[in-house]
Amino acid sequence: MKFVEGGVCAAKGFRAAGLHCGIRKSQTKKDIALVVSDAKASAAAVYTLNLVKSAGITVTKRHLSDGYARAVICNSGIANTCVSDGEANALKMCELTAQAVGIDPADVVCASTGVIGVSLDMNPIAAALPQLADRLSENGHTDAAEAIMTTDTVRKEFAVEFELDGKLCHIGGMAKGSGMIHPNLGTMLVFITSDVAITPRMLENAVRSDVADTFNAVSIDGDTSTNDMVCLLANGTAGNTLIDCENADFDVFKAALHKLTDKLCTEIAKDGEGATKLIVCSVTGAVTKQDAKMIAKSVVCSSLVKTALFGADANWGRVLCAIGYAGASVDVTKVQVEFTSSAGSIKVCENGMGIPFSEDLAKTILTEDEITVRVTLADGDGAAVAKGCDLTYDYVKINGDYRT
Amino acid sequence: MKFVEGGVCAAKGFRAAGLHCGIRKSQTKKDIALVVSDAKASAAAVYTLNLVKSAGITVTKRHLSDGYARAVICNSGIANTCVSDGEANALKMCELTAQAVGIDPADVVCASTGVIGVSLDMNPIAAALPQLADRLSENGHTDAAEAIMTTDTVRKEFAVEFELDGKLCHIGGMAKGSGMIHPNLGTMLVFITSDVAITPRMLENAVRSDVADTFNAVSIDGDTSTNDMVCLLANGTAGNTLIDCENADFDVFKAALHKLTDKLCTEIAKDGEGATKLIVCSVTGAVTKQDAKMIAKSVVCSSLVKTALFGADANWGRVLCAIGYAGASVDVTKVQVEFTSSAGSIKVCENGMGIPFSEDLAKTILTEDEITVRVTLADGDGAAVAKGCDLTYDYVKINGDYRT
Repeated sequence: MKFVEGGVCAAKGFRAAGLHCGIRKSQTKKDIALVVSDAKASAAAVYTLNLVKSAGITVTKRHLSDGYARAVICNSGIANTCVSDGEANALKMCELTAQAVGIDPADVVCASTGVIGVSLDMNPIAAALPQLADRLSENGHTDAAEAIMTTDTVRKEFAVEFELDGKLCHIGGMAKGSGMIHPNLGTMLVFITSDVAITPRMLENAVRSDVADTFNAVSIDGDTSTNDMVCLLANGTAGNTLIDCENADFDVFKAALHKLTDKLCTEIAKDGEGATKLIVCSVTGAVTKQDAKMIAKSVVCSSLVKTALFGADANWGRVLCAIGYAGASVDVTKVQVEFTSSAGSIKVCENGMGIPFSEDLAKTILTEDEITVRVTLADGDGAAVAKGCDLTYDYVKINGDYRT
Repeated sequence: MKFVEGGVCAAKGFRAAGLHCGIRKSQTKKDIALVVSDAKASAAAVYTLNLVKSAGITVTKRHLSDGYARAVICNSGIANTCVSDGEANALKMCELTAQAVGIDPADVVCASTGVIGVSLDMNPIAAALPQLADRLSENGHTDAAEAIMTTDTVRKEFAVEFELDGKLCHIGGMAKGSGMIHPNLGTMLVFITSDVAITPRMLENAVRSDVADTFNAVSIDGDTSTNDMVCLLANGTAGNTLIDCENADFDVFKAALHKLTDKLCTEIAKDGEGATKLIVCSVTGAVTKQDAKMIAKSVVCSSLVKTALFGADANWGRVLCAIGYAGASVDVTKVQVEFTSSAGSIKVCENGMGIPFSEDLAKTILTEDEITVRVTLADGDGAAVAKGCDLTYDYVKINGDYRT
């Protein structure tokens, strides 16, 4: 099992394209992406739990109700949320896509990301779809990954190669961050493709169990978006024996999926709005896995922890504070905290209390751009990891005038 | 019922003092405050729900278990939290205070605020207490209010005058913000004094019911502190008939208390770390009061709403987003949102969707320093208000190197 190039086109039978159609003013920012499977694909998705939902979510849920899909159309710039013509335009996007690539509109997954409350102008999208269809290719994954970006500073696409029954299989994906991200089912836009043969039911099983420890354990800013989904299409082109139950092949598929999603999560967290640092909180020794997860999320969500790490300040008291209000069952007199990075590791708290440590070494460790806050409890066997980023001047700058 | 001068000394029989003793390096920043009641006072408090607690919280709880107290000692600079000598030092602070003013150590309320995980040096405190006792006066309230400040930019002290049985009564208070503030019972340090005669049980009843709508509806940064308490002392010097049950006098007392705490909350929110603006979210028409409260808190806690308002950007989609993930029962297709300030009012969302509005007028309204986000729902009669502040560059600056 290894990482390979190709993003959403690493899986056989998938082509992609992305271009600037005019939803965004900047000519250099691509704003619409198309991914198409040559064959009908099993499809499953998880969606944001926000009660305010993009019309794309509503329409996609309906289209995936039969468990199959052929294409993903996604625009950036406008969220198609809280607008009276939202559903009509989402359906129109599906129709235009279906016409352009010659499929059924009900086989189209439709997503949008961007400003809430502004109507999506369908003219540039209608003009773009024939071009997108023309440009579909196995090399189009990079354009597609760029077209779904909003405030992301780097595109996020990865792919994993592995074997099932001696058949070469792939799972590839692209994701967009980078703000309005907080654990609550799917919490960003993530499109994953695979050439594995798997039933819709088992695909849904795989994605649901995976997001709990991956996309649901990433927080950038505590805001659960209105538009998020994690969507998988698997077209069976690899020719493996159909996965239709929880067997050894399913375990391999889940492991490959996790390798991909874990990588995407790290990149989403690292590229959080304004972030200079990835912050990973790893908790062990909690009463239950759920307690560990609550604590890990609480630490990576704390504005005070995030600003301290931005300042490379070993202010572990804020970590203790975030552990204390996490809502988890925890013996706070047994907490141990270490800060770790590629520059080393330093223990700063033992038995819930400060211990002498070298501030110079701590500074050196925290000046790196990937920091792990290691929390060791003495309450049980529960363990979990959450990912986030620091809170910086640029987060304020980016979000102080996002619409302008 | 009117506001008067005098802070914690407005109530008869209370004296206060504050000075720089050396816990903080800066000679100009007072760091220890003392408030003393001439007579034994009914006392009640609410405390942070954080599992990680300052030793001051533990000791104060014990000292108030009999319902009475005489004095409050509070230092700023060091939190006396997560340190092995925490409880010993908190007890020592009480003893030193008791000796200096000639009372029982068990009648002392002890609080600390500042950096977590650093031992409190008792030498400057021991040296300061006789001086503090000497300086106690009815004019010392301002020094005391200044001595408990941490990152606060203005001292917060107010007092209310009212009548019970024709007797002139007072409730006065001082508070410190301004970071690590989030709703969870008491969420800052607030010391309130009164000359009303009231039993400890009714005093506790009053403070518990009051904080739900006041101190528990303020959020600066989502971090529930380890050291928070809201503590009331009422010494009966006003000579009113003892309030020992829920009667008309109790209602007057509660109204006066609310007038004071509401004012303190506004000032705490407005002076949140790095804040340039007070943000009030007022929700009406929710299914229940609890739903309204969840929604109001969700809006004022949203980093995206906070940064948008810092940028005077009428990005109401983020308000809808925060309403949608609040966890409250709400019909999102009926939501109306208005932004209001002293410069006017503008409706930006109706029936959960955007409506045309003047961006210029919105900018003018949002450029003021007190903004109300008015959310009108069509689900019921539930109403609530929450208070917070914007998220700014200075929040990041203040917290990126708090310890240095």
